[in-house]
Amino acid sequence: MIYGLYVITDERLSRGLSHVELARRAIAGGADVIQLRDKEKSGKELTGYALEISRIAKKAGVLFIVNDRLDIALISGAGGVHLGQDDIPAVLARKIAPPGFIIGVSTGTVEEAIKAEQDGADYIGVGPVYTTSSKIDAGPVCGIGLLKEIKSRVSIPVVAIGGINKNNLTETLDTGVDGVAVISAVVSQEDVEKATKELKALIQNINA
Amino acid sequence: MIYGLYVITDERLSRGLSHVELARRAIAGGADVIQLRDKEKSGKELTGYALEISRIAKKAGVLFIVNDRLDIALISGAGGVHLGQDDIPAVLARKIAPPGFIIGVSTGTVEEAIKAEQDGADYIGVGPVYTTSSKIDAGPVCGIGLLKEIKSRVSIPVVAIGGINKNNLTETLDTGVDGVAVISAVVSQEDVEKATKELKALIQNINA
Ligand code: NI
Repeated sequence: MIYGLYVITDERLSRGLSHVELARRAIAGGADVIQLRDKEKSGKELTGYALEISRIAKKAGVLFIVNDRLDIALISGAGGVHLGQDDIPAVLARKIAPPGFIIGVSTGTVEEAIKAEQDGADYIGVGPVYTTSSKIDAGPVCGIGLLKEIKSRVSIPVVAIGGINKNNLTETLDTGVDGVAVISAVVSQEDVEKATKELKALIQNINA
Repeated sequence: MIYGLYVITDERLSRGLSHVELARRAIAGGADVIQLRDKEKSGKELTGYALEISRIAKKAGVLFIVNDRLDIALISGAGGVHLGQDDIPAVLARKIAPPGFIIGVSTGTVEEAIKAEQDGADYIGVGPVYTTSSKIDAGPVCGIGLLKEIKSRVSIPVVAIGGINKNNLTETLDTGVDGVAVISAVVSQEDVEKATKELKALIQNINA
């Protein structure tokens, strides 16, 4: 299941930490899901990162998801793949995925969300909720209104994404979403593990 | 088995023909292998092309190979994948490939060729043999000397690539290589089917 704090590694937004080191610290801080996301590195490099993060995540019992590259997700033993609207369609990805493999889809509208559920997605990312500096593959800011709307229209887990930080976390979770995905609120911080812990504690307080 | 005329689709080098149309015409002209190669298109678009070319190739009994994207190769029912030195390592690709799935590897030196064979590649591409305008992922021109050398050092099929056309085809095949891969000599020509037919006839004459 997808829930809680979903951390997306992004080397470019980090203060010099690698994907692997970001993942390691976020896991130490209590992240529930780690997504490896890099649109620039070679397949060879990504495979190397994915193998290492997969090993660390398994040991910690944390779900590991690879962005875009289903092949690298499968090779590394990741728990799932996250697909954008321009990536391999979820319904086709399912064909070569083993049983229990998690397929997530980025959505930015109610229509995309409903389509993703019909296509067999296990969860959807919805956003960008707020303005953000990290270029997630997404259109205009959707706000929390869309989160509520989509949450009422699909039954698969909804992960909010885009500009979420400790200041807007409460209003985001109040929409009923199952998880929140963060990038810069964790990976750009001076202390990645501490930033993760703080967000995790906030989520646990809200959900308590 | 990999042999004969191996045509790589490249829309950017074509006179306005799509990957699918290039593949269709090359197959009509007698191509033995078709490789879909595009470093720019989205995963969604590539998947669409791959599904269509796979269908056409199967009908014609022609081997279809997808460059780089193992996931898209598997989803589309392609016969194999072609991996560059910066792509997923062959030995890891094998782990998620079904039995009989063909894995090719680009090599530019004797060392890379031997390594590829050890890693379980089913064939290797070797080049660039001649100077070429198409940017295949490769280093300096290796010439036909390296083809002979590599051919004597590995037992898997060797496909020569890079700047091969009707003028240098004979000296290329005289090195003992199993196949020749072409891009512009087919896809940039006014009549793609006719260009393919001419090269195929030359190969058959040389091998007769
Ligand atoms: Ni590549």
